[in-house]
Amino acid sequence: RKYNCLLGTPDKGARNLNPEDIVRITTRIRIVYFILHKIEIPEEENKKGRLDGEKPEPDSNFCLLSQKKSTEKLEQLIQNKVFEAVFPLHDNTEGVGKDLKKKWARWRDVIYAQPVIEIRDYFGEKVALYFAWLGWYTIMLFPAAIVGIIVFLYGLVHFSSSQISKEICQANSTIMCPRCEPHCPYWALSDTCTYAKVTHLFDNEGTVFFAMFMAVWATVFLELWKRQRAKDVTWWNLYSWDEDEEEMALELINNPDCTIQTHKHSYLHSTLIILGVAVMITILIGIAQAIVIYRVVMNVYFTQSDWDFVRERANTIAVMTGALVHYLTIVIMTKVNRMVAMYLCNLERPRTFTEKENNFTVKYFTFQFFVHFSSLIYVAFFLGRINGRPGQYVRIAGKWRLEECHPSGCITDLFIQMAIVMVLKQTLSNCMEFLSPYLKSKFQKICGKSNGKGQVHTEDGMPDPCKANWLKNYNKVEVNVFSLFDEFLEMVIQYSFTTIFVAAFPLAPLLAFLNNIVEIRLDAIKMMRLQRRMVPRKANDMGIWLQVLEAIGVLAVISNGLVIAITSDFIPRIIYKYFYGPCASSNVSDIDCLTGYINNSLSVFLTKDFRSDTELLRMNVSYCRYRDYRNADDYNFSVQFWHIFAARLAFVIVFEHVVVCIKFIAAWFVPDIPQSVKNKALEEKHKELLEELSVIEHSTEV
Amino acid sequence: RKYNCLLGTPDKGARNLNPEDIVRITTRIRIVYFILHKIEIPEEENKKGRLDGEKPEPDSNFCLLSQKKSTEKLEQLIQNKVFEAVFPLHDNTEGVGKDLKKKWARWRDVIYAQPVIEIRDYFGEKVALYFAWLGWYTIMLFPAAIVGIIVFLYGLVHFSSSQISKEICQANSTIMCPRCEPHCPYWALSDTCTYAKVTHLFDNEGTVFFAMFMAVWATVFLELWKRQRAKDVTWWNLYSWDEDEEEMALELINNPDCTIQTHKHSYLHSTLIILGVAVMITILIGIAQAIVIYRVVMNVYFTQSDWDFVRERANTIAVMTGALVHYLTIVIMTKVNRMVAMYLCNLERPRTFTEKENNFTVKYFTFQFFVHFSSLIYVAFFLGRINGRPGQYVRIAGKWRLEECHPSGCITDLFIQMAIVMVLKQTLSNCMEFLSPYLKSKFQKICGKSNGKGQVHTEDGMPDPCKANWLKNYNKVEVNVFSLFDEFLEMVIQYSFTTIFVAAFPLAPLLAFLNNIVEIRLDAIKMMRLQRRMVPRKANDMGIWLQVLEAIGVLAVISNGLVIAITSDFIPRIIYKYFYGPCASSNVSDIDCLTGYINNSLSVFLTKDFRSDTELLRMNVSYCRYRDYRNADDYNFSVQFWHIFAARLAFVIVFEHVVVCIKFIAAWFVPDIPQSVKNKALEEKHKELLEELSVIEHSTEV
Repeated sequence: RKYNCLLGTPDKGARNLNPEDIVRITTRIRIVYFILHKIEIPEEENKKGRLDGEKPEPDSNFCLLSQKKSTEKLEQLIQNKVFEAVFPLHDNTEGVGKDLKKKWARWRDVIYAQPVIEIRDYFGEKVALYFAWLGWYTIMLFPAAIVGIIVFLYGLVHFSSSQISKEICQANSTIMCPRCEPHCPYWALSDTCTYAKVTHLFDNEGTVFFAMFMAVWATVFLELWKRQRAKDVTWWNLYSWDEDEEEMALELINNPDCTIQTHKHSYLHSTLIILGVAVMITILIGIAQAIVIYRVVMNVYFTQSDWDFVRERANTIAVMTGALVHYLTIVIMTKVNRMVAMYLCNLERPRTFTEKENNFTVKYFTFQFFVHFSSLIYVAFFLGRINGRPGQYVRIAGKWRLEECHPSGCITDLFIQMAIVMVLKQTLSNCMEFLSPYLKSKFQKICGKSNGKGQVHTEDGMPDPCKANWLKNYNKVEVNVFSLFDEFLEMVIQYSFTTIFVAAFPLAPLLAFLNNIVEIRLDAIKMMRLQRRMVPRKANDMGIWLQVLEAIGVLAVISNGLVIAITSDFIPRIIYKYFYGPCASSNVSDIDCLTGYINNSLSVFLTKDFRSDTELLRMNVSYCRYRDYRNADDYNFSVQFWHIFAARLAFVIVFEHVVVCIKFIAAWFVPDIPQSVKNKALEEKHKELLEELSVIEHSTEV
Repeated sequence: RKYNCLLGTPDKGARNLNPEDIVRITTRIRIVYFILHKIEIPEEENKKGRLDGEKPEPDSNFCLLSQKKSTEKLEQLIQNKVFEAVFPLHDNTEGVGKDLKKKWARWRDVIYAQPVIEIRDYFGEKVALYFAWLGWYTIMLFPAAIVGIIVFLYGLVHFSSSQISKEICQANSTIMCPRCEPHCPYWALSDTCTYAKVTHLFDNEGTVFFAMFMAVWATVFLELWKRQRAKDVTWWNLYSWDEDEEEMALELINNPDCTIQTHKHSYLHSTLIILGVAVMITILIGIAQAIVIYRVVMNVYFTQSDWDFVRERANTIAVMTGALVHYLTIVIMTKVNRMVAMYLCNLERPRTFTEKENNFTVKYFTFQFFVHFSSLIYVAFFLGRINGRPGQYVRIAGKWRLEECHPSGCITDLFIQMAIVMVLKQTLSNCMEFLSPYLKSKFQKICGKSNGKGQVHTEDGMPDPCKANWLKNYNKVEVNVFSLFDEFLEMVIQYSFTTIFVAAFPLAPLLAFLNNIVEIRLDAIKMMRLQRRMVPRKANDMGIWLQVLEAIGVLAVISNGLVIAITSDFIPRIIYKYFYGPCASSNVSDIDCLTGYINNSLSVFLTKDFRSDTELLRMNVSYCRYRDYRNADDYNFSVQFWHIFAARLAFVIVFEHVVVCIKFIAAWFVPDIPQSVKNKALEEKHKELLEELSVIEHSTEV
């Protein structure tokens, strides 16, 4: 096998035109790892008695794996508990590993740039690309966070000067229809004064600008990342690297007679996968709906509770238990999704590992996206829009009224949801991510002290420093091929939160920025100190993740357009200003154009039209108001409703097309590959051709 | 130079892993052509006296160009009239050329498949790809044409049974407002009975289906073409061919010391180009508007004419002169566009010829697109929508009323325009394209008989068969690098017509199909018999045209959605059916749901509200009707107007997103590259690696 190793490495070096004489450690580890996973050495002898690994050979610095001769496939052996684990060792004492630990995996280095080259030397290209991307993303979040803060401050400056907040706060005499039917009382609009002011923080003209800005930002981010990536990859001499070729070379080195795996494609399987994905998405949306219904039912149930404390806080309790249930479904469905995605992925029979990873990524991400976002989508676009009107509410099973928007505007609900998700999820997941390996490693260290140490002694009596190192590594937390995948998934979900509903929550980039600064170091510490060293893998791009990010960019345009048009009150205000308000008819200059907007936006409902003889009729109120545009006589939608609705839709169309055009132009404007990289490739080709030419000339002359 | 040729060809052959021992004729021609364009041989001697070419060497069958040693760059020489032309000769007498002439460039072969391989052998890959694409496009048009005919027949079956046509034909008593102000009379709605029937041919539910079908068709077409192309190109061993490398190799063969051209990119230039394109597009749209204004003004001018004949046909004459002016602008702007595109393209300083061609293509196509489509866009989306209402029409310069839609619906105008453009433009351009080289070659033959023949005799007294062939070729029409480009442009513009407004004209695919069958043979005959042989050029894809076609696909989705939503009466009918018609309130089963639609869609205008004391007031009509949804009292838009408008916009949004999703899924479903091609590439890599491995093993053993 050593022969194979030795053969493999120079061959690889030669093929990649690697100018270095020393073959990289990462390459060596990869080759050994590959071979270990494929070997089937025929000898039947010495099968047992090797429960823990042979010592790694410290002089060669080469086969750092816990490798041993075996009679069966390694994976089977692992299953059979013949070996407990296969993994490369950390190398902290000298060289790159030490440097990294010193320069990177410490909290105090937060402000410095990451040593991407050294990460690459230690963990391989794939991990290095992840950290390069994460670093780049964090840097790019900085301007977005700044603009977000400015937009937020703009809202803050106009905090109390807004005509709408003023009108709401003064509306003592505006009596609103009750929020729930049998027991809730009428209420005055001025009760929501504070909320109205807060809403105006996020629902102003700045938000529209910010949504467009973020859509363009997403494009520019991806374009610049492509350039950055091209630079890094050229620097690593991997620009024209080809996974197929490498995999095949490894196969051949291992077994020169192996047959190639051909590409397979089946339309039947594609159809099955589409159907599977569709079914899964339906289930996920169904779960989100179930939670909505749960909240509605629970709300009513709690209001009718005998316990005073519960009855008064019915809504809050319902929302909180709902959030709990939601969190539980996320946790459960994450596991279910992973299994389903894996199953669907295997249906496709992917050829190479990268292909498999890509297929799995797309499916798993799609499912996770729906798990995380379907409730937000409901809040943003459906909550409070399908409720019917007083006297004729839409009811689930004819009984329970649907939830309504917050009285100060539907965008507030979205804002609250976003804030909770961003803050809670990030904090929680960071803690989980860091603490669980930390605790595990602590736990294993304690166990290891009693078990592992004994084993070392039983073998040769005295502690070997190399074996001690091996044991120390063994005690660290296991890693597998999906460890990096999980990191990526977490960041991409975060990226979705930062871009998709950013119109409702301008502080999202700031939160993401702060989180990422911590995240980079957390991941670094985790990888360096708490986990076993990953098997280095080559890669020259992020794989499918780039397309996923691009898809998120498109979704972001659509959803931000919809949020501004449908969730926010931006369009109704504009329409009122130019068509129905005081400024529309006459040119008055001393009056705010939005004067009377609140009164105009509320419809009148005559209490005598309430369906049953509830206690509501007994109160001395002849009519109440509700947020909608309906006629006072037949409760049909008024002209203004349709006018605003048309304007909303027109805004969606215009916003989408304009932003997509801007994205397109931005993508064209910033070339994907920097010219220095292109020129370098050109020069190399030129050199190659010159050499070839001289060879030919030589041969013809001779 | 011959040394270079000889050196170059085996070198090329070796690099491309060409298994054939014989170097292809097309490759040879290309190399010689390239060298001829670059040579600067230092000798000053024998500069003059070589006005016509040396004889081609028939034995080598190699340097078929009219090549000769020269002291300056060939292009300068051509300019200086030292040489009259450089071109490869046709080779009709034997081999591929004869086969092609027999099997391809004849009318009677219309039904057979094209011999793409032989075209490639004779004209090079670029031309072969054009014909392969054209053939594929024609084949794919066949199902689209069939579906188009079915949709058309569906309209025909419902021709007279439609409730709407019936109501229009019976509406004797519905008095419509005059179409122009001072002199036009009131008219009865039943006058437009025939037109209404014809309109229903194209404005029915089938059209919506057809528009969706064509959007998906466009995607499937491109996907299948990508597969087809991948197959062809692999067959030609050009799959991993690289233009940069080839160009560099040719440069090096010609001059081993030459420096490489590096990539250049300047943000300033990109900005300038964007601005230039934007200005140009503005001008083109301005021209379209000018034509609209011309028609409006001319219409009024003709109506006030003294000449009875003109006055009665004012509208027709205005439209016809307008069409003439439009045609003239197209012809003129085509030339202007070409110049502007070339200028902008040179600003970018493209590196290779392909890059230049791509840049030029995008710009020129964009300009040509606006020239051809801006008036159609006006007709589809603006005509009759910005006219105001009786008594308060929108007027140009306060004087001339804008044109209105045809009384039976706005889609009729679009249909007429499309029919004219498709039929006229295709017939005309085919004639022009074929006749102009035909006449030129006839003309030159006549001239050549008196001039050229004399020249041959003056040189060596007796007619040389080779020189005669040379002269015959010289008499054919010149070709340049843009000959093929023009063919492509024509077909892509046709493709745009077939897809972009197909909702208004379901017969477009049929017309395109018929035209293309003719077009293929016309082009073949032109290239084989009337034009000089093109310099063969290698290519492994269609270059930028594929992206252009994809962009057209996206535009087609948008515009078809808009045509159905805005131009056609599909949405108003649906809204009437479900919200305002007899079926909305009660469940009557014996009445057509559209009963009363016509009456509902016409607003009432009281004639006493006409602005001035025109003769209209004197007639005994108290109110007239017009196509719009306005209140009868204040002439503001009614609830129904806003309702319909919102529905139209919602339809656009839903249509776009659904079709884009379907396109996306279709693109995913059909892999770009067939697995046979992928497997072939894989096998080659495998073979290569095996060889390499055996070399290494051999060397280590020794």
